[in-house]
Amino acid sequence: MLTIHETWMRLALQLAEATQGQTSPNPMVGAVAVKNGQVIGTGAHLKSGTPHAEIHALNMAGENARGCTLYVTLEPCNHFGRTPPCTHRIIEAGVKRVVIGSADPDEKVSGQGIEHLRQAGVEVMTGVLKEECLRLNEAYFHHRKTKKPFVTLKMAMTLDGMIATHTGDSRWVTGKESRAHVHELRKRSDAILVGVGTVLADDPQLTARIEGEMLRQPVRIVLDSKLQTPLHAQIVRTDVAPTWIFTTPACDRKKKEQLTAKGVRVIMTRSHNQVDLDEMLAYLGKQGILSLIVEGGTRINASFLRGNHVQKVMAYIAPKLLGGTNSKNVIAGAGPDYMAQAIPLSRTRLERLGDDYLMIGYIDPTGPAKF
Amino acid sequence: MLTIHETWMRLALQLAEATQGQTSPNPMVGAVAVKNGQVIGTGAHLKSGTPHAEIHALNMAGENARGCTLYVTLEPCNHFGRTPPCTHRIIEAGVKRVVIGSADPDEKVSGQGIEHLRQAGVEVMTGVLKEECLRLNEAYFHHRKTKKPFVTLKMAMTLDGMIATHTGDSRWVTGKESRAHVHELRKRSDAILVGVGTVLADDPQLTARIEGEMLRQPVRIVLDSKLQTPLHAQIVRTDVAPTWIFTTPACDRKKKEQLTAKGVRVIMTRSHNQVDLDEMLAYLGKQGILSLIVEGGTRINASFLRGNHVQKVMAYIAPKLLGGTNSKNVIAGAGPDYMAQAIPLSRTRLERLGDDYLMIGYIDPTGPAKF
Repeated sequence: MLTIHETWMRLALQLAEATQGQTSPNPMVGAVAVKNGQVIGTGAHLKSGTPHAEIHALNMAGENARGCTLYVTLEPCNHFGRTPPCTHRIIEAGVKRVVIGSADPDEKVSGQGIEHLRQAGVEVMTGVLKEECLRLNEAYFHHRKTKKPFVTLKMAMTLDGMIATHTGDSRWVTGKESRAHVHELRKRSDAILVGVGTVLADDPQLTARIEGEMLRQPVRIVLDSKLQTPLHAQIVRTDVAPTWIFTTPACDRKKKEQLTAKGVRVIMTRSHNQVDLDEMLAYLGKQGILSLIVEGGTRINASFLRGNHVQKVMAYIAPKLLGGTNSKNVIAGAGPDYMAQAIPLSRTRLERLGDDYLMIGYIDPTGPAKF
Repeated sequence: MLTIHETWMRLALQLAEATQGQTSPNPMVGAVAVKNGQVIGTGAHLKSGTPHAEIHALNMAGENARGCTLYVTLEPCNHFGRTPPCTHRIIEAGVKRVVIGSADPDEKVSGQGIEHLRQAGVEVMTGVLKEECLRLNEAYFHHRKTKKPFVTLKMAMTLDGMIATHTGDSRWVTGKESRAHVHELRKRSDAILVGVGTVLADDPQLTARIEGEMLRQPVRIVLDSKLQTPLHAQIVRTDVAPTWIFTTPACDRKKKEQLTAKGVRVIMTRSHNQVDLDEMLAYLGKQGILSLIVEGGTRINASFLRGNHVQKVMAYIAPKLLGGTNSKNVIAGAGPDYMAQAIPLSRTRLERLGDDYLMIGYIDPTGPAKF
């Protein structure tokens, strides 16, 4: 059973969740104004540069806002950014109480919004549905803290961990519900990454496709140390989404010019043989990429996991057994000597998608086990 | 929402389920007698050769049974076996209505019990919670139909399908809740099977161990074509459970005598290089083994799956990633060329066991895909 506060906060969360994929680099925020047990205003932050959730909710409430309780999933801002501080407006509107889900990790906001409200005599309550509010903006919080995107490793595999047969056949591992879910995931993400091997093998579009919708597309990112990406590849030919290719000084310089001429952004890293993932992630962070989905093959998966660059794992599991020591298992390379060196996932949960299952888990950065 | 009939049948099912592992070669059956909306009798079949569930429930009801409704998970028997027919007793007791979960596939019973009751003027209703009632006795039904045990393939693996590292280390893949669950599974089974490789590597006891309980132990079965099982192996030294070793004419004859002298049953099959699984399963079926758990390693798993000898899969999944193309994946051998050749699992469900997950699924014998 949810408490009254949780019930209203849940609604604010649902408003925020509805904006997934449209607010970056800002966080998702929802707000609900309540007076005498009735909703008098609702709002969500829709897009960077437009009003915050609290403002929409207070606009909707109008004069009626005086004496209300305002539920907001994230601490209201207290600084002049592209919009005036929400705290000023809350005080001005005569809000009696503000109930907050999670504090803002942004140093320009953190705690200051709460402090300002209290000094002005507004009652403040914090931490209602805190876990859900933190999870909602896990990418935003991670980016603010590390200046790098929040990395989700996406895998689609059989129950026995295979992503393709020994011949490379992988159509299809999972069912259509899972594949549709991946497009939802892409839609909510700022960027998708694959290795050049995937480009050469599958020539994917790497876009979020949902029938009947014109979507804001994530940036398409390819790791391609030698610039083997063909000029006729879909990610080069099509301009529905930006394409950024990370390469190394070992690349083909002429190819670099050709790709650039086609509108592809080619980023030269200081790495030698392989693109340095730390350097690449720092670059993406600076570009305002909050969330990155890694959809690479078995070798890309191994590099990201070994380098401890993964925050979240989304494993789409098809209930079937492929078998075979020669089949392609989801994480390549050399395995560790001991089972205790396996990388543990924490806070796991499972969803059913048609006949498939989706396991979601987190990699604890402080976890001891690495390989 | 369950209907009234389903509510009472659920109780009968729960009574039956409580007897898992103690009724073989008989089915599990539960019965509940209800009159004017009140329970007046409950019962379950406890052990082969003792009264059936209906009899216990009617004994408990006594004279009050007249005019009652009797819920029973399996069609009442109509023949003289080791106990007199239940139908006679039901009619004699004046039961007004019998509600049945599933019909009995045993040709001595099937439909005849229902027919006899109806002729005697007892109202009969069938198919209430039929799926659950069929699932409860899936091993019994399979055995009656095929004369072979119902085979459950048990796997314990990482999320990426690994059961051990390249060095063979597998302690532990899953957590203690999963390992305890395996002992429950063993307790409910008539036999456990491993390959001689597992005996040589791990020297397991292969018993069901649940703290504070003296359990009826499943038969321990080893596939050992050359009789490499050491005389000092735990399954030979200990006599807490019977041990049956299946071998081939290629075996060491002297070892056969030594093992037999130690109380091990050594069964010579007509197979050449490897024990023929069909022949072995037919033998087990004749011995009254209704249910078999295969706990073999990756090669045993592959042989059973390839030969289409598996009815049910129980995959204990630890939420961790081992990785490595050299790690031991759960099904060895050569994989198929196409993803469409993977073996699909149907009617899957998932349970959480501590940090782990248990996926249960069935292999459809009519399914097209094989490898």
